[in-house]
Amino acid sequence: MLALRAESGSAVLRDVPRPAAEGESLVRVSLSGICNTDLEIIRGYAGFTGTLGHEFIGIVEESPEAPELLGRRVAGEINAGCGRCERCLAGDPRHCPERTVLGIIGRDGAHAEFLRLPSRNLVAVPDAVADEAAVFIEPLAAAIGISEQVMITPETRVAVIGDGKLGTLCARAMRTLTPHTSLIGKHSSKLELAERTGILPILAGETSGLKNAFDVVIEASGSESGFAAAVDLVRPRGKIVLKSTFAGKPTWEAWRIVVEEITIVGSRCGRFQPAVDALAEGRIEVADLISEEFRLADAVKAVEAAGQKGTLKVLLRP
Amino acid sequence: MLALRAESGSAVLRDVPRPAAEGESLVRVSLSGICNTDLEIIRGYAGFTGTLGHEFIGIVEESPEAPELLGRRVAGEINAGCGRCERCLAGDPRHCPERTVLGIIGRDGAHAEFLRLPSRNLVAVPDAVADEAAVFIEPLAAAIGISEQVMITPETRVAVIGDGKLGTLCARAMRTLTPHTSLIGKHSSKLELAERTGILPILAGETSGLKNAFDVVIEASGSESGFAAAVDLVRPRGKIVLKSTFAGKPTWEAWRIVVEEITIVGSRCGRFQPAVDALAEGRIEVADLISEEFRLADAVKAVEAAGQKGTLKVLLRP
Repeated sequence: MLALRAESGSAVLRDVPRPAAEGESLVRVSLSGICNTDLEIIRGYAGFTGTLGHEFIGIVEESPEAPELLGRRVAGEINAGCGRCERCLAGDPRHCPERTVLGIIGRDGAHAEFLRLPSRNLVAVPDAVADEAAVFIEPLAAAIGISEQVMITPETRVAVIGDGKLGTLCARAMRTLTPHTSLIGKHSSKLELAERTGILPILAGETSGLKNAFDVVIEASGSESGFAAAVDLVRPRGKIVLKSTFAGKPTWEAWRIVVEEITIVGSRCGRFQPAVDALAEGRIEVADLISEEFRLADAVKAVEAAGQKGTLKVLLRP
Repeated sequence: MLALRAESGSAVLRDVPRPAAEGESLVRVSLSGICNTDLEIIRGYAGFTGTLGHEFIGIVEESPEAPELLGRRVAGEINAGCGRCERCLAGDPRHCPERTVLGIIGRDGAHAEFLRLPSRNLVAVPDAVADEAAVFIEPLAAAIGISEQVMITPETRVAVIGDGKLGTLCARAMRTLTPHTSLIGKHSSKLELAERTGILPILAGETSGLKNAFDVVIEASGSESGFAAAVDLVRPRGKIVLKSTFAGKPTWEAWRIVVEEITIVGSRCGRFQPAVDALAEGRIEVADLISEEFRLADAVKAVEAAGQKGTLKVLLRP
């Protein structure tokens, strides 16, 4: 089968053997989405060699130990824990030290004709959610997950820094909880998308009057300057959610975190079901976030397109 | 009156006019304590010029607008807000942008014969708490305040990094809440003090087997390496409390905060009453943390003594 693989610093298309279910479930991929993490992995982040991709929708073709899944249309939680350690037993396989992660750590991913995942990771997706929306379940789950870590009420003043795919999804997820949601970014076209969904758009250079103006600031730009801006924008005793990683060892004004008693919340993944529900009920739109769709056979070109400035989601169809 | 002042990078003893109450309360200082922050201010942190000191116990001598305080023995909350801004109206003058802070920002401090503070900042101290214990109310309040920001139960595994005055007080405050309290430090004499109060002592070089072993790690060493150690010691989804500032712009592995979904809680001050109660009821001992007492007239020598390695609390008696 065809698979897009990360190999020694580049993305290559290979013909590889179809995986066996081996006690897990085999899923025929209908559509997958390219995430910025894929691009970082290609550049060497996480030291991963293997098939890329962790955003997908597909149909279960083999499931020897969970036959009730056969033929079901599913998305899949990407972290597969060992099932035996303290974290797994506490119901948190996402932080199992022995975990594999689809297309990221020790497990081939979704930019392929087939993938396999433990049956317990699969989540059935109702017909009301089209394939083109269902590929957003994983990043949307990560966005909605913020509200399971930080209390957001209709009074909470939220700013999201970064108008890329992740920042936009975070802002849309927050907008369902509070009308006081702002998106701070550098791209007027992306800020217009935000405005159309009821989010207050703010150009990155125009925040000087907003010192201490927000209860919660979500850093989704992945830049060191984004974090510095978050410290300026959040109120004393407010919360900064770190949503995207920034590479290397950046600097920070740690003393301000103490003096202003700010809380920083690292946030990576979220549960899938709330994202499935939000899409099925039409509470969050994602169709306008798709820039382009490619055949899997053209995946190398798709990766190039995804890396262009201003591009939103690029999809791959096997 | 005599006052120990920070002036252009050094600590000097001056004869200055006694302050007037001017709508606040005038307090005759009985005893004051030298904090590491005093030493940092002398070196230029916070750009403060004026009388040092923010840990004290004293007697109210003038209180034109709150006469019921006359003659009372009091400690004092050190942050004085404007009373009108959003933070003050929310009951949080500690983060008022216009605040003055006793001996730190825009307000003469406690290493003097007299000080003045707003009457609402004063907290009566019962006779059961000796002067030598009462000077610890301010830093102890800061230590106990951690438990108002982070949930600590008898099952919570807590490690405090840094065996100085602040770290030791934090460990003692945590020990009243959970028997699983460890203190990590470099000084065997201070670790012995910890062990005598039921805290597990750990030498700083001997933590290699403790990766991810703690639910909550309190950074009270004020060093960049202390923070890096905290990231190693805390479990995924655990909490790091930043209790002491470290100077400049240190580096941090921000990506680990995201991937391990760690929460960092900046923590500076605490309410006074819980600290007064803990001392009055004998739940926390502090007498063994006093290294030496000096007359205010010898305050410059006292500052030198406080700066020596291994010294704990140094007191000044006017």
